[in-house]
Amino acid sequence: MTVLVFLDPAHEHGRIADAGHPQLMATDLGATRGDGVFESLLVVRGTPRKLQAHLDRLGHSAEAMKLELPDQQAWRRAITTALDEFAAVEKAAAPEIVLKLMSTRGVEGSGRPTSWVSVFLPSPTAARQREDGIDVLLLDRGYDSTIADRAPWLLLGAKTLSYAVNMAAIRHASEQGADDVIFTSSDGKVLEGPTATVLVARTRDGTRELVTPRRDSGILPGTTQGALFSAAGQAGWRLGYGPLERADLLDADGVWLVSSIRLLAPVNSIDGTAIAGSPALTAELTTLLDKIT
Amino acid sequence: MTVLVFLDPAHEHGRIADAGHPQLMATDLGATRGDGVFESLLVVRGTPRKLQAHLDRLGHSAEAMKLELPDQQAWRRAITTALDEFAAVEKAAAPEIVLKLMSTRGVEGSGRPTSWVSVFLPSPTAARQREDGIDVLLLDRGYDSTIADRAPWLLLGAKTLSYAVNMAAIRHASEQGADDVIFTSSDGKVLEGPTATVLVARTRDGTRELVTPRRDSGILPGTTQGALFSAAGQAGWRLGYGPLERADLLDADGVWLVSSIRLLAPVNSIDGTAIAGSPALTAELTTLLDKIT
Repeated sequence: MTVLVFLDPAHEHGRIADAGHPQLMATDLGATRGDGVFESLLVVRGTPRKLQAHLDRLGHSAEAMKLELPDQQAWRRAITTALDEFAAVEKAAAPEIVLKLMSTRGVEGSGRPTSWVSVFLPSPTAARQREDGIDVLLLDRGYDSTIADRAPWLLLGAKTLSYAVNMAAIRHASEQGADDVIFTSSDGKVLEGPTATVLVARTRDGTRELVTPRRDSGILPGTTQGALFSAAGQAGWRLGYGPLERADLLDADGVWLVSSIRLLAPVNSIDGTAIAGSPALTAELTTLLDKIT
Repeated sequence: MTVLVFLDPAHEHGRIADAGHPQLMATDLGATRGDGVFESLLVVRGTPRKLQAHLDRLGHSAEAMKLELPDQQAWRRAITTALDEFAAVEKAAAPEIVLKLMSTRGVEGSGRPTSWVSVFLPSPTAARQREDGIDVLLLDRGYDSTIADRAPWLLLGAKTLSYAVNMAAIRHASEQGADDVIFTSSDGKVLEGPTATVLVARTRDGTRELVTPRRDSGILPGTTQGALFSAAGQAGWRLGYGPLERADLLDADGVWLVSSIRLLAPVNSIDGTAIAGSPALTAELTTLLDKIT
């Protein structure tokens, strides 16, 4: 069951729409050009996690695309409406639900974005991969790690609706018997997953360190990685920002793909080679993550 | 006015739908992930140009994305329905109309693509740019020219609905006072426009030559360039496939961006530097193009 609420100037708290019927125009630039932005977040016991960070990132993505969004208060009101409606129609209260925020450039020629919120139950795959871990392929993303600043038209730090390549990479991994992908740059740097941030735990000079790729390497800033870094820093971890290469993944104490819905997915193997993992570390980081609101 | 016809197993000749009302599900992967393929073609005096080439390219794009499309006969029937409907509702017969073919991976979880045909009048911009020519910026596409074969998950030869970067590049050009873009590779090769193929005319050893970038450099094979090459070859032109670099554009007898709707758009300047152009050459190539069906 999906609950759909459109942001609509005529409906202060958002307009509830039937997700079982067509609600988008066939000429919407979101559908014809992948021209829009989105966020996915987890709602735990009724409360969206890291909502402000997601609203801020949605705003940054829109800025990169020169897209004018409704203001954050309008998003918050529509989200409340959607969560209330979901609670009203779903009989059993789900511990976790998924909230998506979408905004497209709207119907061609209209100059008005189409913006909506959807709420639905997470796929069982996410929970399973969280438990069992994932096998990952390293795939070349084609870009060198310094291009993002030089070429803003590549929209590298923006979370856009043009996700065909991300989906194709995951399909490619799946055909090879793997679950997910870590993209690398043409100059051999570890970048990110198609829908997740890379996180590495290692020990340096006797100190435990959490490391994620450099932010200026053309990756999406991870809201979950960001929140986890804050919590881990307070808990005594040293924090680092790449550069990371393939060998850093193979030699780590643990590698995870971190994202808002699946949370911490431990990486079991890379290109078919088993890597060290630590259920204790996963449990420790999960506990830190569970405290984040 | 837009005429919309969905390919639908329950309607052999396609299902006419009202383009003024929502017709797509908000959970369609075309809208949420840019996960689909498309073609745009020109209909001249009622006849779609190069229809077979466009249907074939749609099929190749779908293959690259592991997307199962309706068969070509179903597309042809829906196209006929859409053109008939357009002719019935538009009072004045338009000499040129635009036909778009779209297919998405469908509603998430359904496993059935959403496929439709739309027909509408071309924007006046295309006709103006055909007449007046265009100012172009060279922008780095970030990829090197050898990556397409190595990294099929980048979908470089496929015409997907994930066009946000193409649209951002054109916006970037527009902000700098230019009209369009020619992408270059990180190793300095001329690639393609965001929605067009690059065509260069030059004279070598006294022979007139038409040149387009190498096909294996990660570009979309141009149906208009392909048809024009056939016609030009028969008319005595020597034909060549790159590699082309910036200097080749600046030194050419003429440079065009070639595409199905705008046809031949002569390039007047590159990065602010005026380049040689030849109305006579444009006229000659346009005459060749006008004979293509």
